[in-house]
Amino acid sequence: MKTYLNPKPEQWTELAQRKTVTKADLNETVKAIFDDIQKNGIKAVKKYTHYFDGVSIENCRVTTSEIEDAIAQVSLELKNAIQVAAENITQFHLSQKEIPTKIETTSGVFCWRESRAIDTIGIYIPGGTAPLFSTVLMLAIPATIAGCKNIILCSPPDKNGNINPAILFAAQLTGVTQMYKVGGIQAIAALTFGTDEIPKVSKIFGPGNQYVTAAKQYAQQLGLAIDLPAGPSELLVIADATCDPEFVASDLLSQAEHGGDSQVILVTNSEEIVTKVTSAIESQKAILPRQSTVEKALENSRALVFQDIPTGIEFSNFYAPEHLILSIEDAESKIKFIENAGSVFIGNYSCESAGDYASGTNHTLPTNGYAKNYSGVSLDSFIKKITFQKLTSQGIQNLGPTIEIMAAAEQLDAHKNAVSIRLKKLQNG
Amino acid sequence: MKTYLNPKPEQWTELAQRKTVTKADLNETVKAIFDDIQKNGIKAVKKYTHYFDGVSIENCRVTTSEIEDAIAQVSLELKNAIQVAAENITQFHLSQKEIPTKIETTSGVFCWRESRAIDTIGIYIPGGTAPLFSTVLMLAIPATIAGCKNIILCSPPDKNGNINPAILFAAQLTGVTQMYKVGGIQAIAALTFGTDEIPKVSKIFGPGNQYVTAAKQYAQQLGLAIDLPAGPSELLVIADATCDPEFVASDLLSQAEHGGDSQVILVTNSEEIVTKVTSAIESQKAILPRQSTVEKALENSRALVFQDIPTGIEFSNFYAPEHLILSIEDAESKIKFIENAGSVFIGNYSCESAGDYASGTNHTLPTNGYAKNYSGVSLDSFIKKITFQKLTSQGIQNLGPTIEIMAAAEQLDAHKNAVSIRLKKLQNG
Repeated sequence: MKTYLNPKPEQWTELAQRKTVTKADLNETVKAIFDDIQKNGIKAVKKYTHYFDGVSIENCRVTTSEIEDAIAQVSLELKNAIQVAAENITQFHLSQKEIPTKIETTSGVFCWRESRAIDTIGIYIPGGTAPLFSTVLMLAIPATIAGCKNIILCSPPDKNGNINPAILFAAQLTGVTQMYKVGGIQAIAALTFGTDEIPKVSKIFGPGNQYVTAAKQYAQQLGLAIDLPAGPSELLVIADATCDPEFVASDLLSQAEHGGDSQVILVTNSEEIVTKVTSAIESQKAILPRQSTVEKALENSRALVFQDIPTGIEFSNFYAPEHLILSIEDAESKIKFIENAGSVFIGNYSCESAGDYASGTNHTLPTNGYAKNYSGVSLDSFIKKITFQKLTSQGIQNLGPTIEIMAAAEQLDAHKNAVSIRLKKLQNG
Repeated sequence: MKTYLNPKPEQWTELAQRKTVTKADLNETVKAIFDDIQKNGIKAVKKYTHYFDGVSIENCRVTTSEIEDAIAQVSLELKNAIQVAAENITQFHLSQKEIPTKIETTSGVFCWRESRAIDTIGIYIPGGTAPLFSTVLMLAIPATIAGCKNIILCSPPDKNGNINPAILFAAQLTGVTQMYKVGGIQAIAALTFGTDEIPKVSKIFGPGNQYVTAAKQYAQQLGLAIDLPAGPSELLVIADATCDPEFVASDLLSQAEHGGDSQVILVTNSEEIVTKVTSAIESQKAILPRQSTVEKALENSRALVFQDIPTGIEFSNFYAPEHLILSIEDAESKIKFIENAGSVFIGNYSCESAGDYASGTNHTLPTNGYAKNYSGVSLDSFIKKITFQKLTSQGIQNLGPTIEIMAAAEQLDAHKNAVSIRLKKLQNG
């Protein structure tokens, strides 16, 4: 982790640079697999599962008895923890429900919005040794609250043709309606086109490797919506003399263990804090199992010492971090200055892990500077808001002349006529 | 407009088909212009303005005196109409402001969301004979309410190097901060990279021809957000015996005049209504100036007679129209059945023109079936919602064990450690 003292604004662009991921050009591979699955359906899906995951799957859909087996396999301790987290996530996403407000903009002209669930959505959960059941909670819970009718989960099978029990437990707990043992590009293609076994969805959520990311982008080109543009995970901590350097070190490390391409940034107003945090990182790192990943991530990482915390916050807004921890004096009073961030953790006891798992906030967040123009996943991600309007006969008489003048000025005579014909009939009637 | 009697569900996919627009492959052109502008900045922008718009522009930015001249040129009648519309649009979008709700998910664990404006946004307004000042209102008003600091408008200059006065009037009225005489691919490229004169933006809004659409898609690939995927405009009217066939005809025609690729669909429960509406279309069409456009649009259009209105609504949800007019008995009581639509107009006096111009709702809406998975433009389109959380020392003690168990089960030891280190210190302190 390289330290920079009082970096000038000219340097900020460079300091806000994420590690450039040399994206392999996967477009041809993605297109070939999509074309094959569009043409040959589930047969092609199974062919790719055999090829990529090394296992032959007869029925992609997870059966009720497989789910029951999975439930039996998860420890009571983990079940309880998942349930506590699920309750908090439910509470927070329930609080995002909007009550429609009908307003009368002109006498007799009523306008309002109502939310409707996206009917059918897909949730992709990556495979691998660590079962990302927490992501199941973060996506299936708001989908269920929104009222999505079909919540389709896809996750690659292991060598024995199974999905990790904790994932299946979380899925059945949170209202996933169908679960399929399929991963990678073939999962995204199946959700895009629909096949005999796996239905077509309108929006795809969830993380994945570069193949899944490329496939989601391609699905978006074909008309599906996706949750967020992808990028490696990142954390920026702003710390002053009131921070606990050991806590800060533990937070930076928790982000660094996600992957070698993760980035952590320490922003502070004191060199001494950098020294203390760096030394705490060294000692804590020693006992972590993912040491080489952490070290790789720390190579992309930086400590920035600014003249004061307000300048540090300015840099943070410029960087637009996915996660932002404020370990500074009177932190909550400073949040009004935060312009760009995915999720903000306030004070010394609000570690990022809390939001990753159990506090209630969503952990699917904008990375790579996208916090400047995107929100993280929330209840909003699973609904559309439809506008409604009702004009009474008085309403069209009040507003009609305005519409006629504007339509005429835009040379849209039929638009004008739709009003005139109504006004005329009302005059004559 | 071809009529279909009781079309079976197997036919629905075909009947919901939009006109296939054979998109020219513009990617190479777009990429070449983007590369040139990224490298050569405003000089390249001006070169393309000269080439495509046939006019040499010295300063792209519209000056204060140009704006003053424009204001003087707009008729008082149109100014007043625009002001009435702007007030309604302001009221409706103000009503979309969210008041943050802080909730305590676990004792000592507080979570909430706050909105922040996207700092810098671009608004693209097409050129041509008809000045689309209404779109300026629909985009600049919510941007101003959101608090966007820089609201950048680009619109192509005419042969004399000017933007239509009504566009400039609407822009200055609604809080646009900078206006530039630049259109087409070069405008989108300038907004994507920023140049000496035109600043870089984070999100681009607004309609455009196939060049602008392709350029917006390319900008999205480069990390910018865009408002909505593009497609030709469309209207579906559901009408029963309570409708006024002349009103319905006028609404269908108002949509049809937008372009030859527009589509209008009449859904009803009676052949007689089709006959009446068709005959009203014939007589109203005769006096419209855009007759050939209307006729071309009507070729892509359909009248569908279903056994009853509920089946018609089901088809409408399947089609997912951009605009939906309900000219049916007790229309407002039926809106709970509407699942997919951009904007809904209730009853015989709620013509689409009202929402296009002045009722208050936004007219930037999802086309081409995107109403299944996208909302129209609203205040939300100009903000991000950041999640905040604060755990007290009691909060981390209450929730910490849950996080530790989950992190361990996902094999993320550093995530667990960020909690453990805090719990330990609290025990010892």
